[in-house]
Amino acid sequence: MIGFIGLGIMGSRMAANLLEEGYDVMVHNRSKEKAEPLLEKGAQWAETPKELAAQVDILYTMLANPQAVEAVAMGENGFLDAMGADSLWVDCSTVHPAFSRLMADEATKRKIRFMDAPVAGSKIPAERGELVFLVGGSERDVEQARPHMNAMGKAIQHQGGHGMGTSMKLVINLMLSETMAAFSEAVSLGEGLGLDKEKVVGTLLNGPTTAPFLEGKKEKILQNDFSPEFPLEHMQKDLQMVSQSAFEAGVSLPLAHAAKETYGLAKQFGYSKDDFSAIYHFLSTKK
Amino acid sequence: MIGFIGLGIMGSRMAANLLEEGYDVMVHNRSKEKAEPLLEKGAQWAETPKELAAQVDILYTMLANPQAVEAVAMGENGFLDAMGADSLWVDCSTVHPAFSRLMADEATKRKIRFMDAPVAGSKIPAERGELVFLVGGSERDVEQARPHMNAMGKAIQHQGGHGMGTSMKLVINLMLSETMAAFSEAVSLGEGLGLDKEKVVGTLLNGPTTAPFLEGKKEKILQNDFSPEFPLEHMQKDLQMVSQSAFEAGVSLPLAHAAKETYGLAKQFGYSKDDFSAIYHFLSTKK
Amino acid sequence: MIGFIGLGIMGSRMAANLLEEGYDVMVHNRSKEKAEPLLEKGAQWAETPKELAAQVDILYTMLANPQAVEAVAMGENGFLDAMGADSLWVDCSTVHPAFSRLMADEATKRKIRFMDAPVAGSKIPAERGELVFLVGGSERDVEQARPHMNAMGKAIQHQGGHGMGTSMKLVINLMLSETMAAFSEAVSLGEGLGLDKEKVVGTLLNGPTTAPFLEGKKEKILQNDFSPEFPLEHMQKDLQMVSQSAFEAGVSLPLAHAAKETYGLAKQFGYSKDDFSAIYHFLSTKK
Amino acid sequence: MIGFIGLGIMGSRMAANLLEEGYDVMVHNRSKEKAEPLLEKGAQWAETPKELAAQVDILYTMLANPQAVEAVAMGENGFLDAMGADSLWVDCSTVHPAFSRLMADEATKRKIRFMDAPVAGSKIPAERGELVFLVGGSERDVEQARPHMNAMGKAIQHQGGHGMGTSMKLVINLMLSETMAAFSEAVSLGEGLGLDKEKVVGTLLNGPTTAPFLEGKKEKILQNDFSPEFPLEHMQKDLQMVSQSAFEAGVSLPLAHAAKETYGLAKQFGYSKDDFSAIYHFLSTKK
Repeated sequence: MIGFIGLGIMGSRMAANLLEEGYDVMVHNRSKEKAEPLLEKGAQWAETPKELAAQVDILYTMLANPQAVEAVAMGENGFLDAMGADSLWVDCSTVHPAFSRLMADEATKRKIRFMDAPVAGSKIPAERGELVFLVGGSERDVEQARPHMNAMGKAIQHQGGHGMGTSMKLVINLMLSETMAAFSEAVSLGEGLGLDKEKVVGTLLNGPTTAPFLEGKKEKILQNDFSPEFPLEHMQKDLQMVSQSAFEAGVSLPLAHAAKETYGLAKQFGYSKDDFSAIYHFLSTKK
Repeated sequence: MIGFIGLGIMGSRMAANLLEEGYDVMVHNRSKEKAEPLLEKGAQWAETPKELAAQVDILYTMLANPQAVEAVAMGENGFLDAMGADSLWVDCSTVHPAFSRLMADEATKRKIRFMDAPVAGSKIPAERGELVFLVGGSERDVEQARPHMNAMGKAIQHQGGHGMGTSMKLVINLMLSETMAAFSEAVSLGEGLGLDKEKVVGTLLNGPTTAPFLEGKKEKILQNDFSPEFPLEHMQKDLQMVSQSAFEAGVSLPLAHAAKETYGLAKQFGYSKDDFSAIYHFLSTKK
Repeated sequence: MIGFIGLGIMGSRMAANLLEEGYDVMVHNRSKEKAEPLLEKGAQWAETPKELAAQVDILYTMLANPQAVEAVAMGENGFLDAMGADSLWVDCSTVHPAFSRLMADEATKRKIRFMDAPVAGSKIPAERGELVFLVGGSERDVEQARPHMNAMGKAIQHQGGHGMGTSMKLVINLMLSETMAAFSEAVSLGEGLGLDKEKVVGTLLNGPTTAPFLEGKKEKILQNDFSPEFPLEHMQKDLQMVSQSAFEAGVSLPLAHAAKETYGLAKQFGYSKDDFSAIYHFLSTKK
Repeated sequence: MIGFIGLGIMGSRMAANLLEEGYDVMVHNRSKEKAEPLLEKGAQWAETPKELAAQVDILYTMLANPQAVEAVAMGENGFLDAMGADSLWVDCSTVHPAFSRLMADEATKRKIRFMDAPVAGSKIPAERGELVFLVGGSERDVEQARPHMNAMGKAIQHQGGHGMGTSMKLVINLMLSETMAAFSEAVSLGEGLGLDKEKVVGTLLNGPTTAPFLEGKKEKILQNDFSPEFPLEHMQKDLQMVSQSAFEAGVSLPLAHAAKETYGLAKQFGYSKDDFSAIYHFLSTKK
């Protein structure tokens, strides 16, 4: 039996793909409501993380931040003390490397194996089983999880030991956040200089200076419709983890911090729940 | 007869493509030395911009910055007062929109037509005739220059009236400079977190968060060899023009300015003449 | 006869102090309305800068920016061609050093003497005759203007040749703008951490980390009343001149540019006409 | 008996003032060497924090960062489990508010009282007993510690409950770090524009735009001698705590982060152990 805790935008789609592939899956989520569609498809329900832990050999978690992971793992009715010896915990949450290593230590103390396996890709790739897993852990653990990850994703990139999957995830989200902000500045500048917005967006997307993922943000920017795929407040939170990890590594990131504070100001002006591409709307405001 | 003034890295390759296509070309450059390879291929030489102006119907300029353009156009022995009525000046230099419009006014006063036509693409595309022309001017002017631009480039994007080609060029260079800096921060962070440099570069280049042009910077970053295609000091100069134009347009660009000052610090630490990807080397310095 | 052109917040108060000291003053301003109080006190009116120029030996200008200075000096009915040989033009406007030197050159060509003499101090010091003059020019010119500057100010600091007064003025406004922004961030952080706003402001103002001028911003910040002494948009404009001058000098200023873009965003959100201390209000917004 | 743990630049001077005032003091430090001068003046030595805890009613700690505090309090041979019921722990270290509150909770669980009391002032004020204590805790705790704090400082500012002393300390260090960087940029700009360095420094220090503490940095900047009073790497570490606390409070600080990354770059270029005013030297480098 596979366990899955955390059924938000990402987790619900990932667990659905496991079910579809024919796996037995037991799920838990803070609010049971979000589990209902999965239960209808045959998933089993556990009332608490602890209860779930006792019945699975491998457990996936997909949660919002380190605090949420820690609470579910080690808080009241947490799963960590209830997992069987030599079972495997795969944390797919976006956290920071020091936290992944801390969780690895806590697991190891209890003779449980641990792997950090955050994913690249958001809502649509999660739905289509096209995520990319960025993995930190041992070869043995990767092999055990490989069939499940193949059900949920299209690629598995083994980056190294504990924390290395998480490290690569932060690198990617750094790139994502800065590139989104750069594109927003470029379009905003173009409009300010009198260019046609659609022309600017088109010229940039067709040229070599613009990352492919921005094609997916095109309509949001042209229509000023920022319904969330990846909420702005999550991106800003990830940048804070980048900041902390970069500090610990002795690496300076001037643009990442300019981006972080700009997303932060956007949050203060009400864009928290919008897609992170709403940074464009914040930057091009004229009152 | 076509005139061409400014035979640097870009201009020499552009003029060579005109010659190859069979056009009669008269050239001028501050130092005659750089013109020699073109003269051997059949180009004619003019001692001064003024002398050249009297003998051509259409004149292309490709110079380092607004000051250089102004000097060649309106300084001693400048071409502008010597051009024939209804002749066409096409300025391919990277300048700022207000300057392009100023030149358009100066030309118009003298009954000369003007078009701003800066290019996207650096050394290699210039050589291969694969530049993209970003054009600001009238339909008639675009049509007259079209065959020449086709000889030097692979696409012509007409953005609007005077200054609009230049505007789009600044938008593209903004994107280029920020994306290069973002990539440098991402690789630097990855290394700081203990990831393998080659793995980080590879993972990013194969993912959707990374602009295609960075493939061309891969070896520079992996080998720490920053021989210039687009010198860092030119990128920083372009960012200063972005800054001035954005100010005039009432547009704030927090990341662009963080980038500008980071390139500026790199300049202070000796990277002026290196390729602008040397920003990676500056950012990842550990003494 | 002394000439005075530019009767805004600063200029009107400066000219009034000259009158009070018993000098004959001839004034001009774009709108005559603002001159009325001075005319009542005995000033004479000139319809144009040109008309004024013919009747004075020394001419003071106090205008909003380089463009305004250039228009009044060299535009239609400008004063520069009408000034008598060996007369003295003292420009008190806040401009950038390259512009001051350009004006010095234009004056010298016409056998007119030039001095840049921008002032430190805003509305209240202007009223009380307590400005500090930052002067770039020759000893002889300083001596001729000294009695007037003493009537309008409390100190004269001769910084060097043409452009050096303006250079020091930019240095001071850089300091002013960053310190105001730093104080705003500090108060905003304190409030965010749950400290009492008045306590934070008091503790900072009584400690060694806080510049004396901030005492004068205390009530604005405590009362959230940002009636202008020095409008935010002027500060942002000065920072753009700082940016351009620093670029020309090869000096990188990461905080100054972060400040410039933050004031710029505040402008976009409607704070242009408020005092520049309104940057606090922008930064502490929570929607 | 008073306990004192942490005898670095600050702690050694603070403990010396307690001894001078006639108090019985028992000290501990990671390396005993640094305790020798105090032992000669009559202080007693404890081999471990735990051993010390059992013999004092009130315990002061002055350590480098949260990790050091946590290790000494709760690591092997930590003091927290060994302190008597109702005894008082006063933490003078610069940490972040969430950490102070965490320590308060850990203390409270063990029926020990806690007060955060970081200080404003560095080496010289510590020596002269002129520190300012920024205090978070109960009235009763403040009263018990008041005589000691009076021996070590000149003022006690009670900011509120647990964490509020620490909060104010971060606010002050934010102000300090940005103001130092702003001054460095101003001097660097002045020199770049051709002004005399001494004149720039003098003009700024005599004007209202410059914080009093900068008088104490004057000679360092004029002589390019950056022997440490407050090491640059500590300031950068404090800015990281500011960053984390501001994030938790939902407050954006664009300049503070530009400062943090600039200090960070200076660290990468070898200025870690210099005084934090060495940011001037980094910024004005020209290679």
